[in-house]
Amino acid sequence: MMKKIAVIGAGSWGTALSLVLADNGHDVILYGRDQKNVDAINENHENTQFLPGVALPSSLRATTNLDDAVAGASHILIVTPSSAIRGVARQLNERLTEPVVLIHASKGIEPKTHLRLSQLIEEEIDPAKRSAVCVLTGPSHAEEVALRKPTTVTIASEDLEEAGRVQELFMNENFRVYLNADIIGAELGGALKNIIALAAGMTDGLGYGDNAKAALITRGMVEIARLGTLLGAKPMTFTGLTGMGDLIVTCTSVHSRNWRAGNAIGRGEKLETVLENMGMVVEGVRATQAAYDLAETKQCELPITTALYHVLFDGHTPEEEVRKLMQRPQKNEIEHLFTTKD
Amino acid sequence: MMKKIAVIGAGSWGTALSLVLADNGHDVILYGRDQKNVDAINENHENTQFLPGVALPSSLRATTNLDDAVAGASHILIVTPSSAIRGVARQLNERLTEPVVLIHASKGIEPKTHLRLSQLIEEEIDPAKRSAVCVLTGPSHAEEVALRKPTTVTIASEDLEEAGRVQELFMNENFRVYLNADIIGAELGGALKNIIALAAGMTDGLGYGDNAKAALITRGMVEIARLGTLLGAKPMTFTGLTGMGDLIVTCTSVHSRNWRAGNAIGRGEKLETVLENMGMVVEGVRATQAAYDLAETKQCELPITTALYHVLFDGHTPEEEVRKLMQRPQKNEIEHLFTTKD
Repeated sequence: MMKKIAVIGAGSWGTALSLVLADNGHDVILYGRDQKNVDAINENHENTQFLPGVALPSSLRATTNLDDAVAGASHILIVTPSSAIRGVARQLNERLTEPVVLIHASKGIEPKTHLRLSQLIEEEIDPAKRSAVCVLTGPSHAEEVALRKPTTVTIASEDLEEAGRVQELFMNENFRVYLNADIIGAELGGALKNIIALAAGMTDGLGYGDNAKAALITRGMVEIARLGTLLGAKPMTFTGLTGMGDLIVTCTSVHSRNWRAGNAIGRGEKLETVLENMGMVVEGVRATQAAYDLAETKQCELPITTALYHVLFDGHTPEEEVRKLMQRPQKNEIEHLFTTKD
Repeated sequence: MMKKIAVIGAGSWGTALSLVLADNGHDVILYGRDQKNVDAINENHENTQFLPGVALPSSLRATTNLDDAVAGASHILIVTPSSAIRGVARQLNERLTEPVVLIHASKGIEPKTHLRLSQLIEEEIDPAKRSAVCVLTGPSHAEEVALRKPTTVTIASEDLEEAGRVQELFMNENFRVYLNADIIGAELGGALKNIIALAAGMTDGLGYGDNAKAALITRGMVEIARLGTLLGAKPMTFTGLTGMGDLIVTCTSVHSRNWRAGNAIGRGEKLETVLENMGMVVEGVRATQAAYDLAETKQCELPITTALYHVLFDGHTPEEEVRKLMQRPQKNEIEHLFTTKD
């Protein structure tokens, strides 16, 4: 059944997801803050700023007016940087009159509070104004989704029935959607994988090769699962699309800005310079800080995250941190999976 | 303590592992069948055929005489194509007089019998002539090990005490070794990952992108774990270096001959042509046949393996099989991990 869906955030991912929904015949309105970009979408059917070269469906409309975007929508999809989620949720709360289904497709953890993004949405939007909160996450570069290349993601929610209806909104022959009831694991997988992507980029920047990177990704997933399980996630979620799948795509693709930032650091650049040059949000830097703090609080060993933290914030060199990782005492491999000690 | 170690098989992987052992000060003798190649190793300290450009330690000796190689060795490392393992084990059995520790570093399943390689070794070598059987496996391109780039592998054995001593033989600052008691899972992870690597190459050959490949790797690991668990492995082993780690390195590196074979098929070449042009063993083809047969016997659903089987042996096109995979009914993601039904 055709739905009116508001998409908040006209970056590459918000635009690509709007395209999927418009392909499926829904009435999609995309909210962005940049009038020029919104005009380009409406007039030329192209997001020239964030998704250049892709012809958007002519049914897809864009607006800079949040009231217009939200009015009458049964579903609201939030796709902003994680740092903007709380503010957006607050603005939505002021405008909603009927309960809507809220879906977010962002990745991060709020610094200091260490809350997941769905928790921010729940804090800021009155229960009477939301019928469910879902996350859409998984291995998905926007550029490929926009080109209608085969892509597989997960919708996670505590409300699986509502999530099943969201699954139907998105599913088509190019875009396959799985369900998962473990929203904690799905959100943490997406947020924490950015840490390992930074480290993987750094390894590549150092010229260490595919063996080192595969080991880093594998042991990185152990860390994600270890911390995630302590935070209430189901361990198995981390072996799925939102854990391992997203980790692989982020660590092995040059599309990934976290990988690119790590790569520059591995080649000897300073964090501040890298962040300035990127001109885009690098979620992994914030996530490293949050995971490091959480690991201290929870007494959980995260060797890779700790090594990365020392490079990013304490001025250690990538070389010395990799050497330390390789020279840790001999270990049994499996006994230490999903336990707090490494 | 310095050991005499015989390495059987002077391909790229046997040579790279010999280099690690020689770096650690052991007395290593490498057995190969090609006299010219053996002479090049002894005289020029280079395996010109399989590892060109790498200066081998001058302490590393090579021979075409199996009796000389084996005489007095406390450890024998077998690194041949999986199809040669049974014959090599039989030849060793004729020559051994004292019990030795046997380690193999090959990947495959014997067609028809569906036995793992350590089982072949156990069948062919009298119990009185072997004190333990181990497997060395994990994400490790020979070319990178030879360049002493950081690499992490697993030694698996039912005899963890002996495996711990093998771990010490190999471990150094570039080569980190973990232990695992689940030899079934370690061997099956290495063998079955070649199936998914073929499929990943095919996806890349079709031009489907990183999202599709990450999904394929993730769902591929589910299949490996599902079949492996039915065959007696511990499910967690598949999340480690010998499962996920090896799967990632094989699916994302152009070094991998399984990936290269799949890539050529995805670009429209026929299996026979591809195998002829490679001039090397493509273990994934044999493994696909074995896994397909096993899945039928065990009533275990393996959608990716089945799709690949149809392409390799039944003349289906890669496009139609990918389309079928994308259009399967909607699923919950996690409920179906590690169960026989998908």
